[in-house]
Amino acid sequence: MMLIICGIGLKPKHITLEAVERLKECDRIFIEAYTSYFAEGSAKDLEKITGKKIFPLYREDLEGNLENFLDMAKRNKIALLILGNVFSATTHMQIYYEAKKKGIKTEILPGISILNFVGKTGLEEYKFGRIVSIPFWQQNYKPKSFYAYIKNNISSALHTLCLLDLRISKEEKRFMTINEALEILRKVDEEKILSNRLCIAMCGVSSAAEEIVAERFEDLSRKDFSKKAFPQCLIICAELNEKEKEFVGLLG
Amino acid sequence: MMLIICGIGLKPKHITLEAVERLKECDRIFIEAYTSYFAEGSAKDLEKITGKKIFPLYREDLEGNLENFLDMAKRNKIALLILGNVFSATTHMQIYYEAKKKGIKTEILPGISILNFVGKTGLEEYKFGRIVSIPFWQQNYKPKSFYAYIKNNISSALHTLCLLDLRISKEEKRFMTINEALEILRKVDEEKILSNRLCIAMCGVSSAAEEIVAERFEDLSRKDFSKKAFPQCLIICAELNEKEKEFVGLLG
Repeated sequence: MMLIICGIGLKPKHITLEAVERLKECDRIFIEAYTSYFAEGSAKDLEKITGKKIFPLYREDLEGNLENFLDMAKRNKIALLILGNVFSATTHMQIYYEAKKKGIKTEILPGISILNFVGKTGLEEYKFGRIVSIPFWQQNYKPKSFYAYIKNNISSALHTLCLLDLRISKEEKRFMTINEALEILRKVDEEKILSNRLCIAMCGVSSAAEEIVAERFEDLSRKDFSKKAFPQCLIICAELNEKEKEFVGLLG
Repeated sequence: MMLIICGIGLKPKHITLEAVERLKECDRIFIEAYTSYFAEGSAKDLEKITGKKIFPLYREDLEGNLENFLDMAKRNKIALLILGNVFSATTHMQIYYEAKKKGIKTEILPGISILNFVGKTGLEEYKFGRIVSIPFWQQNYKPKSFYAYIKNNISSALHTLCLLDLRISKEEKRFMTINEALEILRKVDEEKILSNRLCIAMCGVSSAAEEIVAERFEDLSRKDFSKKAFPQCLIICAELNEKEKEFVGLLG
């Protein structure tokens, strides 16, 4: 029948009127529960808004059983809710394109993502380069490809939005803090491009506990973000223009 | 009292539940009517949704009379609606920061923008570089700074979202078509980096008439986009990875 893939933003009230309308027509609604999380509220609030039960799906439900999931979409009108925007993760694009390949009718509804908030820092949206993700480091796996991208952004006078890793499963919920990200960045910064560099920490984006702090790399590292609200992300600034200097100076 | 700056997305039904709630509490609602436009629907639909009259503001109302506007916000709870997201234009950031400087309480509500749709092309959100704007060329003013940014993006293997200029005033409504943008690009392309390059045209983003077409630069130039839906924008692709090749191949 149909698969609606719907971005729901960072909290239940970010949902659009279009999405509410479309979800009310669905036979069954699922929510992807492993690549992101609510800044505030929960799926329960979305159940009240839509008047429908919402079933969580974890990585093993969706990636391991994609065939089953798509089979259901052949016979029913189903919705898959994605925290933030629909396309932020390759895994969600894969679901969309597999459905298309199978000839299932699909519809994409966009949602507010953390990208919609970068302007709130005072930095210009047009002066951002490639977005990077900072992954958790493990004993034998310490990826650092993001460092080359940050370097390249800086040398092109572009700011870098760093998205921080997270682990969500039925058993575990672990979010990378800004401190952990800064520590990984310190370790990869062989060329000392981050030394004394202005960085902006964003905590609890869009929640009542939202906090945006601009400081030098070293000063930010001395703060404790572990008790601050999530989602957290980090912006590494390139050279600021005059307007940006003024705007960032007005933060807080 | 308070100034709420609210992104309303590309069409009335993109408005979030949060925005509807907050707008209903306002004494007066204005809509900025000169840097963007609705993909479908109009401010009339937002009047029905919020139950309030919405007053349009043009450049001369807002930039020329910012003091008056902010004075009103000192005594009332007012909202300024922005098509798309709040921070896409420097002029809106200026209003926000001027209000903050005057000690007026401000609130920012994010909205869906054209950036939330780039993933729909099959390209990865993380592989976009700096966004550029392509301005109308005039007799004595033919800016081409965007060309250097596109070149830099390509050499960093990053795609470029090109936003197309528009002129909206009480007297005039003029939108740059994808053809006009391609013609300007052809003229600035001294190094022939665009020759034979894959480009993606997006027309009527988020409207019922939405159309996404991926073709080589020259082939796209031979199509006529003047009768297609607006907003229109153009993506200049860098090298595609395997997933992207597969996904872009499934367009249409």
